[in-house]
Amino acid sequence: MSGRLFGVGVGPGDPELLTLKAKRILEDVDYICTPKAEKGGKSRAFEVVNDALDTPARVKELLFPMVHDGEELKRAWKEAADEMVRLLSEGNDLAFITLGDPLLYSTYNYVLDNLGREEEIPVETVPGINSIGASAARLNLPLAKGDEKLTILPVPSGPEELESILTVHENIAFLKVSRNYKLLVDKLEEFGLKSSSYLVSRCGQGREEVITEKLDTYLDEEVPYLSVVISKSSSASP
Amino acid sequence: MSGRLFGVGVGPGDPELLTLKAKRILEDVDYICTPKAEKGGKSRAFEVVNDALDTPARVKELLFPMVHDGEELKRAWKEAADEMVRLLSEGNDLAFITLGDPLLYSTYNYVLDNLGREEEIPVETVPGINSIGASAARLNLPLAKGDEKLTILPVPSGPEELESILTVHENIAFLKVSRNYKLLVDKLEEFGLKSSSYLVSRCGQGREEVITEKLDTYLDEEVPYLSVVISKSSSASP
Repeated sequence: MSGRLFGVGVGPGDPELLTLKAKRILEDVDYICTPKAEKGGKSRAFEVVNDALDTPARVKELLFPMVHDGEELKRAWKEAADEMVRLLSEGNDLAFITLGDPLLYSTYNYVLDNLGREEEIPVETVPGINSIGASAARLNLPLAKGDEKLTILPVPSGPEELESILTVHENIAFLKVSRNYKLLVDKLEEFGLKSSSYLVSRCGQGREEVITEKLDTYLDEEVPYLSVVISKSSSASP
Repeated sequence: MSGRLFGVGVGPGDPELLTLKAKRILEDVDYICTPKAEKGGKSRAFEVVNDALDTPARVKELLFPMVHDGEELKRAWKEAADEMVRLLSEGNDLAFITLGDPLLYSTYNYVLDNLGREEEIPVETVPGINSIGASAARLNLPLAKGDEKLTILPVPSGPEELESILTVHENIAFLKVSRNYKLLVDKLEEFGLKSSSYLVSRCGQGREEVITEKLDTYLDEEVPYLSVVISKSSSASP
């Protein structure tokens, strides 16, 4: 008889942005599984949880090296999946935690690919506040109204794809902006969107600085890793 | 000295999907403002809150008639804004509640337009779980991975706009699907996307039925008002 697997989004970083359901499940499960880039390293998702729970959690660290070697990564995923399956088969309930929402650009997608499809494991996903909603809230900025569209994407690596996106979309939330920040700012300027675009960095990371800036006042190209740029072609302003 | 205005997202309907922050603020404020379509009618957002709070809330109902007459609606907004400003000026803290997230297709956008821009009123937005994240969670279905895009929009009224969206987007979450359901299903079939599209209705509405169906098994055109269709052009499946 297998234990249950919960995929739990812990929100963008502020422990208060956990849902009541996430808190209840994380206090109930036998193990909280938290992905780490290196042994002894920190898991930001776990720091959030640790601040929010009333009872101490039993933690199972899973190692996911930040490598671009597909084979090495695949091996790490297989090992992590095997370990989780072992714990589940012993009847333990597990919660795999991720920052933000589990189904929006998170490592939980790979957990589902590796073991969530096995029918004998009951899987439940608990949604979390994503960084886009949290960033818009910091700005009091509408993401979309009426019949408008909202498109969410990591900043494309090439200028052509970015141009085509800026041409057709009215509300855009860019993720992973630090990897191609200069290109993004240049193109937003070219398309006349710089003054209606906003940067939010480290949103909800309680112990760190929150930066919210109109792009046309933010010149530093060294933006933090956890940053979102929200670009509006309509006349909305926060 | 003005009270504070909080725009609070209460999530898709399950009281457990409130955030810890939303719960704290809703228990703290002097009045919870809840939009209603008619006098004596029910506010779904307030039902959610009522189930989640430990202390009874003082409620201020605001009337927003479901009318298409722009002038009548504008007058209703103005009256609601005046009432809120009056309460705030007496030093009361107010929470304006909305289903889902306050900045994604919600009436809170109009609250901000009508009084949130006044500098003397301190405004704080508290993000909520939106129906798209909650629906994906019910399906254990990834919304976007890696460098993929996710586009969110109400179903367009014309076939041409819908076709152009289905042509260029890989992951799409359609809202307000009940108003144009037949067109949506027909076009998804035409584009070969019906078998990778999923309907979730009344997600998180604890006391009501949750429908999660692959579109190619759901023939009824009478879909409930609170429905989302998630369409994937990639090979992902829940």
